[in-house]
Amino acid sequence: MSFNTYGHLFRVTTFGESHGPAIGCVIDGCPPRIALSAADIQADLDRRRPGQSRFTTQRREPDTVRILSGTYVDPADGIERTTGTPIALMIENVDQRSKDYSDIALKYRPGHADFTYDAKYGIRDPRGGGRSSARETACRVAAGAVARKVVPFVTIRGALIQVGPHAIDRARWDWEETAKNPFFCPDAETAQRWEAYLDGIRSAGSSIGAIVEVVAEGVPVGLGAPLYGKLDSDIASAMMSINAVKGVEIGAGFAAAALTGEDNADEMRMGRDGAPQFLSNNAGGILGGISTGQPVVVRFAVKPTSSILTPRRTIDRDGNDTEILTKGRHDPCVGIRAVPVGEAMMAAVLADHYLRHRGQTG
Amino acid sequence: MSFNTYGHLFRVTTFGESHGPAIGCVIDGCPPRIALSAADIQADLDRRRPGQSRFTTQRREPDTVRILSGTYVDPADGIERTTGTPIALMIENVDQRSKDYSDIALKYRPGHADFTYDAKYGIRDPRGGGRSSARETACRVAAGAVARKVVPFVTIRGALIQVGPHAIDRARWDWEETAKNPFFCPDAETAQRWEAYLDGIRSAGSSIGAIVEVVAEGVPVGLGAPLYGKLDSDIASAMMSINAVKGVEIGAGFAAAALTGEDNADEMRMGRDGAPQFLSNNAGGILGGISTGQPVVVRFAVKPTSSILTPRRTIDRDGNDTEILTKGRHDPCVGIRAVPVGEAMMAAVLADHYLRHRGQTG
Amino acid sequence: MSFNTYGHLFRVTTFGESHGPAIGCVIDGCPPRIALSAADIQADLDRRRPGQSRFTTQRREPDTVRILSGTYVDPADGIERTTGTPIALMIENVDQRSKDYSDIALKYRPGHADFTYDAKYGIRDPRGGGRSSARETACRVAAGAVARKVVPFVTIRGALIQVGPHAIDRARWDWEETAKNPFFCPDAETAQRWEAYLDGIRSAGSSIGAIVEVVAEGVPVGLGAPLYGKLDSDIASAMMSINAVKGVEIGAGFAAAALTGEDNADEMRMGRDGAPQFLSNNAGGILGGISTGQPVVVRFAVKPTSSILTPRRTIDRDGNDTEILTKGRHDPCVGIRAVPVGEAMMAAVLADHYLRHRGQTG
Amino acid sequence: MSFNTYGHLFRVTTFGESHGPAIGCVIDGCPPRIALSAADIQADLDRRRPGQSRFTTQRREPDTVRILSGTYVDPADGIERTTGTPIALMIENVDQRSKDYSDIALKYRPGHADFTYDAKYGIRDPRGGGRSSARETACRVAAGAVARKVVPFVTIRGALIQVGPHAIDRARWDWEETAKNPFFCPDAETAQRWEAYLDGIRSAGSSIGAIVEVVAEGVPVGLGAPLYGKLDSDIASAMMSINAVKGVEIGAGFAAAALTGEDNADEMRMGRDGAPQFLSNNAGGILGGISTGQPVVVRFAVKPTSSILTPRRTIDRDGNDTEILTKGRHDPCVGIRAVPVGEAMMAAVLADHYLRHRGQTG
Repeated sequence: MSFNTYGHLFRVTTFGESHGPAIGCVIDGCPPRIALSAADIQADLDRRRPGQSRFTTQRREPDTVRILSGTYVDPADGIERTTGTPIALMIENVDQRSKDYSDIALKYRPGHADFTYDAKYGIRDPRGGGRSSARETACRVAAGAVARKVVPFVTIRGALIQVGPHAIDRARWDWEETAKNPFFCPDAETAQRWEAYLDGIRSAGSSIGAIVEVVAEGVPVGLGAPLYGKLDSDIASAMMSINAVKGVEIGAGFAAAALTGEDNADEMRMGRDGAPQFLSNNAGGILGGISTGQPVVVRFAVKPTSSILTPRRTIDRDGNDTEILTKGRHDPCVGIRAVPVGEAMMAAVLADHYLRHRGQTG
Repeated sequence: MSFNTYGHLFRVTTFGESHGPAIGCVIDGCPPRIALSAADIQADLDRRRPGQSRFTTQRREPDTVRILSGTYVDPADGIERTTGTPIALMIENVDQRSKDYSDIALKYRPGHADFTYDAKYGIRDPRGGGRSSARETACRVAAGAVARKVVPFVTIRGALIQVGPHAIDRARWDWEETAKNPFFCPDAETAQRWEAYLDGIRSAGSSIGAIVEVVAEGVPVGLGAPLYGKLDSDIASAMMSINAVKGVEIGAGFAAAALTGEDNADEMRMGRDGAPQFLSNNAGGILGGISTGQPVVVRFAVKPTSSILTPRRTIDRDGNDTEILTKGRHDPCVGIRAVPVGEAMMAAVLADHYLRHRGQTG
Repeated sequence: MSFNTYGHLFRVTTFGESHGPAIGCVIDGCPPRIALSAADIQADLDRRRPGQSRFTTQRREPDTVRILSGTYVDPADGIERTTGTPIALMIENVDQRSKDYSDIALKYRPGHADFTYDAKYGIRDPRGGGRSSARETACRVAAGAVARKVVPFVTIRGALIQVGPHAIDRARWDWEETAKNPFFCPDAETAQRWEAYLDGIRSAGSSIGAIVEVVAEGVPVGLGAPLYGKLDSDIASAMMSINAVKGVEIGAGFAAAALTGEDNADEMRMGRDGAPQFLSNNAGGILGGISTGQPVVVRFAVKPTSSILTPRRTIDRDGNDTEILTKGRHDPCVGIRAVPVGEAMMAAVLADHYLRHRGQTG
Repeated sequence: MSFNTYGHLFRVTTFGESHGPAIGCVIDGCPPRIALSAADIQADLDRRRPGQSRFTTQRREPDTVRILSGTYVDPADGIERTTGTPIALMIENVDQRSKDYSDIALKYRPGHADFTYDAKYGIRDPRGGGRSSARETACRVAAGAVARKVVPFVTIRGALIQVGPHAIDRARWDWEETAKNPFFCPDAETAQRWEAYLDGIRSAGSSIGAIVEVVAEGVPVGLGAPLYGKLDSDIASAMMSINAVKGVEIGAGFAAAALTGEDNADEMRMGRDGAPQFLSNNAGGILGGISTGQPVVVRFAVKPTSSILTPRRTIDRDGNDTEILTKGRHDPCVGIRAVPVGEAMMAAVLADHYLRHRGQTG
């Protein structure tokens, strides 16, 4: 994964700024003859779209995706399918409020990429965060929708499992709940607690971090490669590439540090179906960089957005001490919208490794 | 990072199995005219070498590195320097005990890559773990020694900060201590406690996980790129590619999930030296994927090795339920030797991004 | 160069089919702070645009390019500049005649990609050649216009030097002539002969091959790398990637086979300006894969298009013997429009190697 | 193909200088379970080895290859097979004559990479040409021997078809002849003429160029990709990466410039075996970047070596005009040894595309 492209055989290149004409991506390497229409992609985009509750930014965009290339409607059956050529997707930006960005253009928001962009490039589009806007993640979700179709036998689901200090109770985990609350929370009780908690954060003009868990079931055994093309290495890279993510773990993750070899090792038995079976999943579905056939389980931490109403000390482009607070639309917990983004990145990594595996081992 | 190569401009390709003739790597893209001799690399290798205390595997190898290509001794001054051509390094395997591997060859150690290698490739070198042996990390350390010379202005140091449930006291952190105990522990008191603890683990034929922290100081501002060529994304990939690593975090990491935007954002002030200064470092030296000039701080979790003396339930290649225990040399805490490996991976990522940055922004 | 991306640090990914909604490209890795507007790119596109004379296809498109991302207009001076983020360019397709493609959809044009696309992918957009349309080269020209701005000190010019059996007289070479005839021919006399010759080809519904020469002056010494990152290797790949190209040569090229070492070697002398000077340029500006500072000279052969009015024997998708002839718009000599495309590919390769060189050697 | 690595899924990284301790390569991505021993590779290396006739350099090396990693001898059947891990091959340099290279170290041989290496890197190993020595091609041949085993259904053969002004008579082409003369010449009569001609070149201390043709039969239809991942684009890059190559053409190549669309297009008919059949092969087995199933035919031009006995004007490192002539071992026609090298590069490209194709289209 380098620059604005990720993947090796299933490759995605994204482009676009928050307030430019459009954002989008080019998917190169998608196998041919897969039924694919804009509507398929739109469904995933709609899950990520902001402004659906008071807990995400109030920017309102239809986020309508157009397929610019790479599919063909067969006149014989009227079905749109991939052709094996690059699939370009475009989402036009429409809600570009004529806001005054002069403050952000001159001062660096602490915790934001403003400073580093200027330091590296000497130029920066300050409008809406420019390239570093969470808006870019719409492209990831769009690409993920295509990736899912490359590995249709895999079920990828994400959930928010912690908001600030409040973690869910895993005993109450119910995937169906994730569609019933605005947080993708799998635990109905905790979702209620978060609602009150986030109302407080929101009304204070503050923000809070979160932890997301993504689980992929049905991953075939054998995806990945030892050491450097490791499935977990690519998942770590993919998740860490999402805006605001500060940590990634697989399976037992950091908790593995406190485990003994006896406790950590997932014992095996032959299943009644004649297939190998693991008696636990501390490995998170990956051993030696290669999928075991168990669910692939990844968690990542999302820091709170730095666009808050409380003034913070900072400097300006001219090197003067100053203060800044960010008015306008706020995202009290960017971790919420990171859930479908994490699913999408998981889908892209798995699609890529599925094609690699097929290539290398036949 | 893909397959057995990592890096984009500073690229390392490693090869070798535990019990083959040799392990090694090819470093491609190292700038020319850097003074480099085998002795420079050997110093780093010696820090990683096993068998230096009773807390690492008793395999005894001199791990003598040879430079096969890519350097030239100038007859004028007798100094060996890089020429810009590929630097091949080779370490011959000498301590290949004529042990009987037939047990491991047929049964899968729970928590080990045995099962997935067989599932993916249908063939596997069982001797000493083959490609998945921790021995491979010697190549990473060798390449890291070269990488350090590409960014000589950066100081990269690692420490073990947790063994099993026992974490260090950060208030007692002293880098000099890391050279005084066999654990790379920066806290002398905790090192003593670990000694007793690990003696217990070792005599029980058990193993335990650990957490490593690597800090890079002197990193120039501006390394990295937004979103996909993010410095943190590449660090995550690099660390997760190390054997047995299950989690990676940058700066505040997973703790950021519990922080508010006010607490997480690192405020800024102009320093007395006229340079921007951050008042804290929750970002771990990286904002928006680009280095801030503060220390880059990464932590990673290492699971306990699955080679233990307690019998565990497993299956064999023929699909029968069975049990396995691993006799022979044991590594009670592979996290210890992961410290110089983590440093080396950090060095490789920084060298690569330094060259990229120089290329893209001049 | 792989799949639909070319370049390593200056990377271009193209997308689009002849009759889809749009074609375009994403340029990743362009350095920041370069003044760039759509008008800059449009100028190059206009040189390539078909329908400007009776010797190229009569498809009439404005080929209007839009910049979707990667630039920012500084409010201070009103100048649009690159920001270092991906530059997405889009050209909408407008002249998509509602032609009946059912004949081409079912039968394979000999010499065309119809057969291989179907064989590989099992699906193909037959409209206007789909992805294999020469229309795709507009994206290359657009990307090339950006690439030229990365190496503004290099002058890249192309010329058509042979059409069918009729080669130019190199003694009459005058770069200014290339703008005065519809063939980019540097020799006015030969241009006149081609006019009559191509009128005959065109009225016969036939087509003819050609040879293009591209010369880059002002290339700094040192671009490229030995053996595998060779500048000439990348140029060969780039030119051979253009539709219909069947051969590429550098400097003396195939003629070098008949030269002795004495004749081939370009002797050197120190110039009056104190710079090394070559007394000839059989090397075409590249020795050992690295630029010498002399003009980089490349030639490539373009085969005649297979869309002709004479019926040819072929087979259909169902495996029946049949015949085909291609009605509609014809391109009697696709080599003509290949001239600006060759220039653009040269620009992209040089921009990429310039950034690589800056990265690797500082 | 970039720097010292070529290929995308079947990837080869080479290293080594003429007079360093060793040369070699790492092959990453080779599928598992392929029977492979050093003897298999040695056979190909022996065909390339110099000193086998008076027409190639008199450097005498056994060129003994060692497999350092990536294979495993199954104790059950005693067969050595690939394991899917990186295959490292090493050839130690033994004939490093203690020659005085001070002349070459200070002066630039016209037509050689001496000048550009110094200009780019500011340092250069002058001994035996260092990295730019034809010796490096042994690594390509070794990798090619492995590549052939990835596509065992393809027959790859090369021939020398022109030496200086003397081309073979294609009507007399007989593949078996290539093994009977020291030139890999498929035409016995021409081989005799070359013998006399090259004796003259050799005794004059001169050198001469040549043209090599490589043919791959049995290539499955569908390898390659449109436009940028074109099979011909990768072949062009691969051949142009060989030392001293100045031109590459596929099928009709440069001659296509003089062909009409009627003559160039390879007509099709269904064969008696029910498979599509082409009535000619101007395409050289590739249409639209994808293999047609016909033989893939490539030719490349090799310039004469610049190491000759006639003094040539040049400059030295200090910027003084001077003269140079190269004493010692000479290669009157480096094109001869380029034949097995061209075969090897063809094998590597086909192996890579075969794996890619399998990955992308299943």
